[in-house]
Amino acid sequence: MTEITAQRWVLTARPQGEPTPENFRLESAHVPKPGEGEILLGVLYLSLDPYMRGRMSATKSYAAPVELGAVMEGGTVAQVLRSNHPDYRAGEFVLSHSGWQTHAVVTPKQILRRLDPAIAPLSTALGVYGMPGFTAWAGLREIGKPKPGETLVVAAASGAVGSAVGQIARLRGARAVGIAGGTEKCAYLRDELGFDAAIDHRAPDFAEQLKAACANGIDVYFENVGGAVWEAVWPLLNEYARVPVCGLIAHYNDDSYRSGFNGELPVAADRLPALMRSVLTRSLTLRGFIQREFVQHYPEFLREMGDWLHHGQVLYREDIVDGLEHAPEAFIGLLKGRNFGKLLVRVADPV
Amino acid sequence: MTEITAQRWVLTARPQGEPTPENFRLESAHVPKPGEGEILLGVLYLSLDPYMRGRMSATKSYAAPVELGAVMEGGTVAQVLRSNHPDYRAGEFVLSHSGWQTHAVVTPKQILRRLDPAIAPLSTALGVYGMPGFTAWAGLREIGKPKPGETLVVAAASGAVGSAVGQIARLRGARAVGIAGGTEKCAYLRDELGFDAAIDHRAPDFAEQLKAACANGIDVYFENVGGAVWEAVWPLLNEYARVPVCGLIAHYNDDSYRSGFNGELPVAADRLPALMRSVLTRSLTLRGFIQREFVQHYPEFLREMGDWLHHGQVLYREDIVDGLEHAPEAFIGLLKGRNFGKLLVRVADPV
Repeated sequence: MTEITAQRWVLTARPQGEPTPENFRLESAHVPKPGEGEILLGVLYLSLDPYMRGRMSATKSYAAPVELGAVMEGGTVAQVLRSNHPDYRAGEFVLSHSGWQTHAVVTPKQILRRLDPAIAPLSTALGVYGMPGFTAWAGLREIGKPKPGETLVVAAASGAVGSAVGQIARLRGARAVGIAGGTEKCAYLRDELGFDAAIDHRAPDFAEQLKAACANGIDVYFENVGGAVWEAVWPLLNEYARVPVCGLIAHYNDDSYRSGFNGELPVAADRLPALMRSVLTRSLTLRGFIQREFVQHYPEFLREMGDWLHHGQVLYREDIVDGLEHAPEAFIGLLKGRNFGKLLVRVADPV
Repeated sequence: MTEITAQRWVLTARPQGEPTPENFRLESAHVPKPGEGEILLGVLYLSLDPYMRGRMSATKSYAAPVELGAVMEGGTVAQVLRSNHPDYRAGEFVLSHSGWQTHAVVTPKQILRRLDPAIAPLSTALGVYGMPGFTAWAGLREIGKPKPGETLVVAAASGAVGSAVGQIARLRGARAVGIAGGTEKCAYLRDELGFDAAIDHRAPDFAEQLKAACANGIDVYFENVGGAVWEAVWPLLNEYARVPVCGLIAHYNDDSYRSGFNGELPVAADRLPALMRSVLTRSLTLRGFIQREFVQHYPEFLREMGDWLHHGQVLYREDIVDGLEHAPEAFIGLLKGRNFGKLLVRVADPV
């Protein structure tokens, strides 16, 4: 009866610094059977996102870590293969959070929403029309609030969140300055997505280029990177600038960062008083957020983003890796900026 | 005709670190004569406030520095001695910003508002019923937003801003934990102002005491101090905590702070990434502000605070120094926390 073999990636060790392939183990098993009221999902796409680095460490972040030996966490687009629940039937497409595996048995509570491929391609439910797109939309709606004529800066700008941030800011009438790694990504931002400027953070004169591109200063900095980009942005922030703090990928492999307040910190110039002085004298807003805080606005997001996608006002790019077996190396590359667009693993084709 | 001699304190040198008496010079002059449309003020009270330290340095803050040789800046309660303007007549009391001097010639634009001693004592226009009280009220209304049952922490809690912050938070239903220097100030906070707890920041186990007083964490930290207090508060901040950043008096005499982003920073642990991680993982809000941003709410403040004062729901304490000649030493003491309550200089009695 279980002729198909299921596969899953489990976490075997917590990384010291950068994750390595040895932190993961690919396990094979029989395809699980759904019990009473349960549903068997076959995963089509697995989303790979920077937040997963946090789940690999034991330190408490805003969510519990993945246990050693447990399946790696992750959002998925899946197809119902078998259903013992009256609300779902085989063949339907759903958004779930079933992790780095080919199959999962879930209850309806673990299904986030039904997907209709006629409305938008299924894979977009993991990108521009899903959590990353909602992160961009909600972070701007609730915190960044770009106004016509203002200047917004976003890094990792060709990625899933950043590309949506810049395009939404432009739709709200603001100037969008994108930061990305390499000339190819910068050209994409300017020529295809319509960013007003794009700057390569690898350029030796990166900070000067950023300053030149932001002649009127920066009103919104959508922070998803930290590190050297934040240091270049900070002096350019205008009075009343808003900084939605959405991620800090530059630090995710840094154990001193992860250890938080009680750990060993790099001995260097302590910039904390200088930051607080900037916050005070320029009336800055720094606001951390996780998209789930704003979940009550999700239907509004789906309407507005659906409309933009339908009319080609928001474009997106996907970087699709074929085969679940490549998930760890793709994820390790994501933390180094090797992907170009929303990173997805194609796990299987629809039945 | 000018039988009275006017006096004024001018800035003669910019301080290196702590201000000293040598940074100021007391000058005497004839009482100035108001021209056409002008008004001669006789200062009754001069307000001394921490922000004045910023004006003594050449570094741009949120306001221009006082020029060398110019009169030190400051808010005043004054009486109209002579008026060449139809809207004002001799004997009236006004709030102005006429600086560290006994007399000033102003135009109506330089008069902030008329004062009625029947509504509140004149001196309160420089404290609880003026700029410091409004700073507390507006910082809580717009940023801190204490809710019933939440815990608010404020330092310099027996001072002009801090004492208002704690009392307003309690009127909004929150718990107020005050931090002050010395047992006398702490007893005042608890026994007279009704703070739920008061902690002496000079105690060797200060951080432990603060933690014990905030068993449910901290939801609002009204930041007017910085330094060691901020370091003790930060680990206790709850998810979604709000930090109105109103002042950083612990750093005002620190040249490395003042030099801002481009200057020499203390070589120590760099806590910037750790702070950004806290902002991200606990969805914190840090928001700098200057009260003038919220000036449209001033009438509402006057109504609400006037009502509280009238009903004894907000109490205040003044630390009054007699004689303009003592202004520099009183100001230097303010930066060291030597005052107990709103610091004022009584310059003259009403005519």
